[in-house]
Amino acid sequence: MCLRTDSAAAVMESTFSRWKTQYLNRLDPSKKGSVDEDIEHVVSLLNSREQFFTTSSCSGRIILIDGVAAGRDIRKQNCVWLYVSHQKCTSDDLMTGLTKSTGDVVLKFEPFVLHVQCRRLEDAQLVHSAAINSGFRNSGLSVGKTGKIISAIRSTHGLEVPLSHGGKCLVDEDYIQFLTKIANEKMEENLNRIQRFFQNLQSALSAETLHIPDSPSIQELQDSQHTQDRKEGRTGNTQKKKQLNVYE
Amino acid sequence: MCLRTDSAAAVMESTFSRWKTQYLNRLDPSKKGSVDEDIEHVVSLLNSREQFFTTSSCSGRIILIDGVAAGRDIRKQNCVWLYVSHQKCTSDDLMTGLTKSTGDVVLKFEPFVLHVQCRRLEDAQLVHSAAINSGFRNSGLSVGKTGKIISAIRSTHGLEVPLSHGGKCLVDEDYIQFLTKIANEKMEENLNRIQRFFQNLQSALSAETLHIPDSPSIQELQDSQHTQDRKEGRTGNTQKKKQLNVYE
Repeated sequence: MCLRTDSAAAVMESTFSRWKTQYLNRLDPSKKGSVDEDIEHVVSLLNSREQFFTTSSCSGRIILIDGVAAGRDIRKQNCVWLYVSHQKCTSDDLMTGLTKSTGDVVLKFEPFVLHVQCRRLEDAQLVHSAAINSGFRNSGLSVGKTGKIISAIRSTHGLEVPLSHGGKCLVDEDYIQFLTKIANEKMEENLNRIQRFFQNLQSALSAETLHIPDSPSIQELQDSQHTQDRKEGRTGNTQKKKQLNVYE
Repeated sequence: MCLRTDSAAAVMESTFSRWKTQYLNRLDPSKKGSVDEDIEHVVSLLNSREQFFTTSSCSGRIILIDGVAAGRDIRKQNCVWLYVSHQKCTSDDLMTGLTKSTGDVVLKFEPFVLHVQCRRLEDAQLVHSAAINSGFRNSGLSVGKTGKIISAIRSTHGLEVPLSHGGKCLVDEDYIQFLTKIANEKMEENLNRIQRFFQNLQSALSAETLHIPDSPSIQELQDSQHTQDRKEGRTGNTQKKKQLNVYE
């Protein structure tokens, strides 16, 4: 065992614990001020494990945004939210929102998104694998300069439809009804994927708890494989290697 | 310097070189069979560096897809592509495509996407930082079981608009004209971001070449920081630390 690796890991873990305590003790900075109902179980599961804490989340939502620049990204600060729902909507909800438009309205379905800060790279990989296997194909990790490791869960499963220009509606009521159906179908599929993600995460975490009480780093895994091959001359006992691989 | 770390790194680097050679010698498996014109310079820059190779890319495109299930994800295998352009389009292009519809047509603007396989985690972080700083906010890394490190560059900047159902058009020609304008504006903004990404990537790579002929691993950076602090008793000479940080 390399002493320098141990010390560096100990420093990283104590920093992570400090970050986690700070995050979980702060006030929720979102408009709503609380975690969305449909993902409370996912967020709780992650925060109950010492190697994770969630930094932001949205279960998925249908929104009508009224902005000034329709073609380009509508910046949050320059727009009015005419309608927001984290559940299915009716075409009346959308029509009512749309009548309040003074600029360029866009209907969006924004799927589930979750950012999880992770103690080690292997912890982030575990979350990432569960996300990819549940259909969240735009998921990815980021590793900051200060050692901050984030696993972001994202979907490709969106909808973005311009509906009005300069306060004037560009489509008819039948089209709004059709869009409502599509947005609601996407919301349903989104919930199915969240459930798959929760189950995949539970399985991966149980497997990890059974096999690795103290998960090794990637370097330790490689070193273990490397030195073990030398000791065994690539023969016999592979039990330790099997125990170490959480991704099989 | 820890010998085991050196050996593991050498094995990883030789595997990476083999992967790169295999990838660059294969036939391009995309429909088009070549890299999109607007990103040739980005792909060439990355492939000219030994620590990178690109595994898939698209400069951005406007497409009309005719599928059977409008609400859910339209799977590529179950749909017909009525129109594809990697450049700006006209409303006539879209109207002509739309007249061929027999199912549920969706107009999509799909922004620039690029997957870069990277030799080390630090190389992937460099690409990731350049992408985030250029506005590609859905970018992320993935680290596979076999040590395959991919940096994916993705944008949030899309458009997804249902246009017909059962072969019947749901919107009028004025709306198609408005959509054409928006799709083209998004295409333009997409090209601006690609250019920013290219410039950020060039700067980061030049800085790296100037400062670190052989980039150290994250572990080496941490070890260097850690042991240096001990040697210096947290005083004096910080020059080596400065040279090692490619992200400043």
